[in-house]
Amino acid sequence: MRAIKIVQFGVGPIGAGLTKYALMKHGLEFVGAVDIDPNKVGKDLGEVVGGQKIGVRITDDSRKLLTKTKPDIVLHSTGSYLKSVKPQLLEIMRSGADIISTCEELAYPFLKNPIIAKELNSSALRYNVTLLGTGVNPGFVMDALVLTATGVCQDVKSVKSSRIQDASYRRLPFQKKIGAGLTPEEFKSKVAEGTIKHVGFQESIAMIASGLGWKLDRIDEAIEPKLADKPVSSEYLKVEAGQVAGVNQTATGFVGGEPLILLNLQAYLGCPDPKEWIVIDGQPKIDLTIKGGVHGDMATAAVVVNSIPRVLNSKSGLMTMKDLPVPSGWFSDLSNFIERKR
Amino acid sequence: MRAIKIVQFGVGPIGAGLTKYALMKHGLEFVGAVDIDPNKVGKDLGEVVGGQKIGVRITDDSRKLLTKTKPDIVLHSTGSYLKSVKPQLLEIMRSGADIISTCEELAYPFLKNPIIAKELNSSALRYNVTLLGTGVNPGFVMDALVLTATGVCQDVKSVKSSRIQDASYRRLPFQKKIGAGLTPEEFKSKVAEGTIKHVGFQESIAMIASGLGWKLDRIDEAIEPKLADKPVSSEYLKVEAGQVAGVNQTATGFVGGEPLILLNLQAYLGCPDPKEWIVIDGQPKIDLTIKGGVHGDMATAAVVVNSIPRVLNSKSGLMTMKDLPVPSGWFSDLSNFIERKR
Repeated sequence: MRAIKIVQFGVGPIGAGLTKYALMKHGLEFVGAVDIDPNKVGKDLGEVVGGQKIGVRITDDSRKLLTKTKPDIVLHSTGSYLKSVKPQLLEIMRSGADIISTCEELAYPFLKNPIIAKELNSSALRYNVTLLGTGVNPGFVMDALVLTATGVCQDVKSVKSSRIQDASYRRLPFQKKIGAGLTPEEFKSKVAEGTIKHVGFQESIAMIASGLGWKLDRIDEAIEPKLADKPVSSEYLKVEAGQVAGVNQTATGFVGGEPLILLNLQAYLGCPDPKEWIVIDGQPKIDLTIKGGVHGDMATAAVVVNSIPRVLNSKSGLMTMKDLPVPSGWFSDLSNFIERKR
Repeated sequence: MRAIKIVQFGVGPIGAGLTKYALMKHGLEFVGAVDIDPNKVGKDLGEVVGGQKIGVRITDDSRKLLTKTKPDIVLHSTGSYLKSVKPQLLEIMRSGADIISTCEELAYPFLKNPIIAKELNSSALRYNVTLLGTGVNPGFVMDALVLTATGVCQDVKSVKSSRIQDASYRRLPFQKKIGAGLTPEEFKSKVAEGTIKHVGFQESIAMIASGLGWKLDRIDEAIEPKLADKPVSSEYLKVEAGQVAGVNQTATGFVGGEPLILLNLQAYLGCPDPKEWIVIDGQPKIDLTIKGGVHGDMATAAVVVNSIPRVLNSKSGLMTMKDLPVPSGWFSDLSNFIERKR
C-alpha cells in the first residue's frame, strides 16, 4: 500500500502539535500545509513546528494545494466554532479528503448546530468522505470515555465527569485563557465578554445523552473563578492570594427535569490533585480516576492522529467519537490498520 | 421498526444473567431459549432465570428452534472453549442470526485458535452475520478498556492491567473456582488439572498487541495461590490463616523480547482494596483506576446486552471489541440505536 497523503490545515499551537506527532508515524506522507499567518507562509512545515525541514512549504492557497495534491486526509485545526470553519471544511471535502478536526463544536454538532451538521453530513456523503471532530476534550475524556465506562452498566441513573487540572505547567496562552493572574472583577468581565470559556461542554453532554438514548431538556452552564487561597506561581505568572488562579466551569444536562449529566472543569495554578474523575451512578456504580489527569495538548494530538485509521476505514459521513471503534494508539505502519482499499 | 427477535442459547448462571438484563430492555422480543439441562427443558425461560413467566419455553432442540423462529440475534453462553462451542456457533450462523457469545476464547481467537477463527469468520461472511465474543473479562476491563486508555497516548512503552477482586461477595461456584478454602497443596494439584484458571489472558494480550500494532513473541502465564494471612470468611466458606484465600494469576506478553503487556488477576476472600488498575507507561503516562472494581457477573451481562446494537449495525464477519464502536449502555428503545434497515 502507498503512503496515506496528509495535509495539515492550520499550523497554530494545536496544529503544530498534530504535525509533530503525525511526523513520527509510519505510513503517512505530508503533501502540504495551510496557514494564513504571513510569518509562516512559504516556510517549511517541519521547521515551523520546531523540527527538521521536511520539504513541505506552508501555503495560504488551500484551494490550489488541495486540487494539486489530492490528500487522503486533512488534519484541520483553525478554530473552535463551526460557523467560522465551515467553509474550510466544505472546501476540503470537495477535494475528496477525509477530515479530522479539532474544532470543538464539531465533536458533536447535532445539538447546538443542527443545520450546519446536516449540511456537513450531506457534503461528506456527496463526496464520499468522512468528517470527525475530536481532541482530548471534547472528544475523549469527558464524553467518549464516559460512554465507554457505561459499557459495563445495566442501569445508569446519572453521570458526573470532572477534569481537574494543574495549569502551572501549561503554555502561557492557556494560563491566560483560564484567567490566571486576574482580579475577580477582571475575570467576571472576561467571562461576560466570552473570552474565558471552555468550548465543548454542550457537545460532550449531547454526545453522552445521545449515546445513552436520553432526551435532553436543556443544558445549564456556569463559569466561576478559582481564587488562590495562598500565593501561587508558574514559570510565567504570579498570583496573589485572593486573585484568580484559574477557572471552575460547570455544565449540567437535564433529562426529564432532572440534572443527570454533570461536567466540571477546573484548571488553575497550584491544583494539588489533578485528575480525570468519572462517576457513573448506576448498576454497578463506576468510580473511575485517571491520576494526575491527561495532558491536554499532548493528548489532543494523540487522539487526532490515533483516529486516522478509524476515519480512513469508516463509511462516509459526519461521524463522532461514539460512532467509531474503540480509540487506541497505533504503533506500526499505518497500512497494518487500513481495511478500505484505495 | 419491529422488535428484534432474540434467543438465549445456554441458560446457566451467566446465560440467566444475560436474559435477566435483556428482559429489561425495550425493543427486544425473546422468541426462544436453548439448554440441555433436563431440569430446565420445557420450563419457562422467565421463571428459570428467577422472574415472571414470559411465555417462552426452554428447548434442547436448537436446530428446530432456530429454523422456526429465525432470530435476529442469539446470546450464546455455553462454554469457555472454542473447540467445544464451535458447532453451536456454526449452527446459529447458518440460521442467519448474529451472535454475541461469552465464550472467552472467542473474545480474540486469532492467536490461540487461528484455524477456528478463520472458519468462523468465513461462515459469518457466507451467512451475512456478525459474530462477537465479549464479556467483562476478556472483552472489556483488561483489553478494550486498556486499548481505549492508549487513545490519548503518543507513545506506549508498556501496558499493565490489574484486576483485583474481593471474592467474598461472589457466588459459591466462583469462590470454589478460585480455590478458596483449599490447602496450598490442593490448590497446586487443581492448577495442574487445569480447573483453577481464568481463561482469557491470551485473548486479552493478543487483542491489545494487535490493537497497538505490536508483534507478540510469546505469552508466559503463572498461577499462584493467594494465601490468607489471617482467618477470612464468606457467606459460604471459612479460610484459616495459611490456607488458600484465592488466586493470583499473571500473564506476560513479550514483544521484541521484552515483557510489554502485563496482566494480573487477583481474586480472593478478604481483599482490602478491590479495583481495576491500568497503567500505560507512555507519552503521556496513564494511571487509571476503577475504585472497588467492576462486578463480574453483572458487568458481563451488561457488556453483552449493551453490545447488541453495535453487532446489529456491524458489517458481517467475526468481530472483536476493538473493531466495534465505543461500548456504552443504551437506555431507550433499541430502534433508536439501529442503523441497518431490516
